[in-house]
Amino acid sequence: MRAVAVVGIGKTAFGAFADRDLRSLAVEAGLACLADANVSPSKVEAFYLGNFAGPSFVGQNHLAPYIAGAMGVEHVPCTRFEAACASSGSAFFHAVASVAAGMYDLVLVGGVEKMTSQTTPKVTEILAGAGDMMGEGRAGATFPALFAMIARRHMHQYGTTREQLAAVAVKNHANGAKNPQAHMRKIITMEQALNGKPISEPLTVYDCSLISDGAAAVLICPLERASEFTSKPVVVKGIAQTSDHVALDEKDDITTFRAVKEAAQKAYKMAGITAADVQFAELHDCFTIAEIVATEDLGFVEKGSGGPYVLEGRTCLHGARPINSSGGLKSKGHPVGATGVAQICDVVLQIRGDAGERQVARHDLGLAQNLGGSGATAVVTILGAA
Amino acid sequence: MRAVAVVGIGKTAFGAFADRDLRSLAVEAGLACLADANVSPSKVEAFYLGNFAGPSFVGQNHLAPYIAGAMGVEHVPCTRFEAACASSGSAFFHAVASVAAGMYDLVLVGGVEKMTSQTTPKVTEILAGAGDMMGEGRAGATFPALFAMIARRHMHQYGTTREQLAAVAVKNHANGAKNPQAHMRKIITMEQALNGKPISEPLTVYDCSLISDGAAAVLICPLERASEFTSKPVVVKGIAQTSDHVALDEKDDITTFRAVKEAAQKAYKMAGITAADVQFAELHDCFTIAEIVATEDLGFVEKGSGGPYVLEGRTCLHGARPINSSGGLKSKGHPVGATGVAQICDVVLQIRGDAGERQVARHDLGLAQNLGGSGATAVVTILGAA
Repeated sequence: MRAVAVVGIGKTAFGAFADRDLRSLAVEAGLACLADANVSPSKVEAFYLGNFAGPSFVGQNHLAPYIAGAMGVEHVPCTRFEAACASSGSAFFHAVASVAAGMYDLVLVGGVEKMTSQTTPKVTEILAGAGDMMGEGRAGATFPALFAMIARRHMHQYGTTREQLAAVAVKNHANGAKNPQAHMRKIITMEQALNGKPISEPLTVYDCSLISDGAAAVLICPLERASEFTSKPVVVKGIAQTSDHVALDEKDDITTFRAVKEAAQKAYKMAGITAADVQFAELHDCFTIAEIVATEDLGFVEKGSGGPYVLEGRTCLHGARPINSSGGLKSKGHPVGATGVAQICDVVLQIRGDAGERQVARHDLGLAQNLGGSGATAVVTILGAA
Repeated sequence: MRAVAVVGIGKTAFGAFADRDLRSLAVEAGLACLADANVSPSKVEAFYLGNFAGPSFVGQNHLAPYIAGAMGVEHVPCTRFEAACASSGSAFFHAVASVAAGMYDLVLVGGVEKMTSQTTPKVTEILAGAGDMMGEGRAGATFPALFAMIARRHMHQYGTTREQLAAVAVKNHANGAKNPQAHMRKIITMEQALNGKPISEPLTVYDCSLISDGAAAVLICPLERASEFTSKPVVVKGIAQTSDHVALDEKDDITTFRAVKEAAQKAYKMAGITAADVQFAELHDCFTIAEIVATEDLGFVEKGSGGPYVLEGRTCLHGARPINSSGGLKSKGHPVGATGVAQICDVVLQIRGDAGERQVARHDLGLAQNLGGSGATAVVTILGAA
C-alpha cells in the first residue's frame, strides 16, 4: 500500500443559502479544491462523492456524474457514497484506499448537502431515515430524541452534567466565531446555552448542530507525487471505517459508540500512534453529548470523563488538545453529506498552519471523526505533516 | 492486482411482494449467497451495497449497516453505493477493485430495491431523480419519455423499426418464462408487443421494464482462495465503470451511450478480449431500445444494426449470442438497486452451467452491462470460467 497525501482542499461557506442549488455548491467546492492544487478537472481519475439525502432534500439523485459533469470531470468512475452523516467520511475512506492500492493517482473527493430548502420538521423526518424507521421512526424517535436518551444515560451512568454538555456548545461557538466560513459566527455564554429552548430533554437548541447548506472537497494522490501539486502535503497516516447496528435498542451500551472505538483502534494501529499522540481533532458534535462520548471512545480520556474534560477547558482553542477549532457541526454547520470531507479540510488547514485566528499551537498530527446516525457508521482519519 | 473470483451467488425472486420489507429481501439474498459459498457472516470483511432510492421508496436510509447488522455481518466497513440503476453494478466494481488491490479477501456485495409500496406515478417521479431534475424533470420528461426520444432518434437515424423494438420484448419474455425467479413469466407475441398500451410514443407498455421488489448478492474473493468456497469459481476477467453527463441535452449523440462504449473498451482491454469473444450477455434493457443501443455500443454489431440483429433472432436463447437469457429487466424484473448484482448472478449461473431450462450453449465467457439513468453511469463486467 502506498502512502496517500491530501494535496488540495476546497470548501464553500456553510449556511442557509436560498439562492443556491446543491450542484452549484458542490461544483464551487470541487473547483476551489482543484485550484488549490493547480490541477485541471481533466486530470482527475475518479470522483468519490458523499451525499446523505439529496433525493429527499432536493429531489435529485445520481449525484456523482451530475456534479462531475458540471465540473468538467469526465470519462472516469463517478460514485456516490451514502452512510448517513458519515457519507463523505466514507467516500474519503474508499478513495484513500483506492489510491493506496494503486488503482488511481489523482482522486477528487467531495461532500455536499442542501438542507434548508425544506422546513425543519421535514428535515427532521429526512434525518430520521438514518435511524431505524421500522422501530425508532415508528415510535417517533427523531435524532434529537435518540441523542437525548444517550445523554440521559451518560448522565445517569457517569454523572455527566448539563453544564458539561453546554461547555461543548460554548467552546465550539467561540471557535466558530473565528471561522469566516462558519454558519453561525456567534459567541454564546454558558448561561445562554443552559437556558436554550428545550428540544428534547436534556438537550436544548444549543446542544444541537445546525441545519446547513454547504460543500467541501479534497484532492488526494500518492505521497510520492504530492510535490507536483503543493508545497504543504498532508499525509493520511491512518484511516478506518467500521459499522454497528443502526437501532439504539440493538446496542449493548448506548453511552459508547462501538464503531468509533473500533475504527480508532484500527486507525491508530495503521498510523503507529496512540490516542495520546493526537494533538488536535475535529469530532462529530452533531449533539453536544456526541463530542463528549467521542473524546472517550477515541481514548482521549477514560470512559465517563468526557464531561469534566471539556468543562475544564482542556479542549478549547488554546487547551492541551483543541477539539473542533473549526467550530464543529455546532457552529460551523452540518450540511450532512459535506461534514466528513469538511473535517478533513479543517484538519489539513491546521496542519498546513493556515488556520488564521483559530490556528492551534501544536498542529503536526490531527484526527477527524465522522459519525453516521447514532453510531452505525464511523470513520476515523489521522492526518499528519509530511 | 490479484485475480478476483465470484464464489457465491444469491437472489430473491423478483416481483411485487406486499408482505415483504426492503431489509428482509436484502437479508434473504445475502444469506442465500453466503450459504451458496458455505461462509458464515462473521467471515465477511466488507459489505458493499447497491441501492438507488430506499429513502424515497420506503423512507429508510443508511442501508448498508442496517442490512449488514441483520445478517450478522459486523465490525467491518459497510457502505451504500448509489448510481441510479447502476447502483449495484457500481458497488460490485468498487468491491472487485478492493479485493484485486489486496484490501480484503472476502467481500459481500448486495443490491436491493423495494419499489411496489409506491404508486406507479410516484415510482415514476422517484425514478426521474436519476435524470436532471432541474432540466428534464422540470420539463416533465420522465424516463419513458427520455428513452422514447432515444428510440425516435435511433429510428430516424438508422431506420430502426417498431418490430425490432418489439422483438426485444418478445425474446426477453420468452426467456423470462423459463426463469422461476422472474417477475413476469409470460410469453408474449409480436402482435401483443406491437399493440401494447402506449406509454410514450413509440414505446408501449411492452417496451418498458417492470417495477419490482427484489434483492441479489454475490460473494467475491481472490481467485487463489476460490477453491475454499466453491468447485465452480467464476473469474472477473475485466471490469470498468465510467460516466457521462446526466442530461440528454448535454450529450453529443443520444443514439449512443458514450459511457458504455468507454467502459466496454476498458473491460475488453483488461480481459484481453474483443467484443467478438463474448458468448452471451446480460444487458440493461430498461427499455427495449436500450438493449438495441447496448448491442451496438458494446461492439456486438455495427452502429445502427442493433435492430436487425435482434429481429433476426441472433440474440435469442439458442441464437449465436444469447442476450438476457434471464429474461432481462423486461421480464425478470427491475428492482433498480438489485439489477447490477442480479446480472452478475445470472452470468455466473450460466458459466457454472446451472441455468437449467434457459442454459445457453456456449457459456465460458459472458458479459454484464449495467446502465444508470439515461447513460450517465455504465458498468461493464466480463466473467469467465476459471
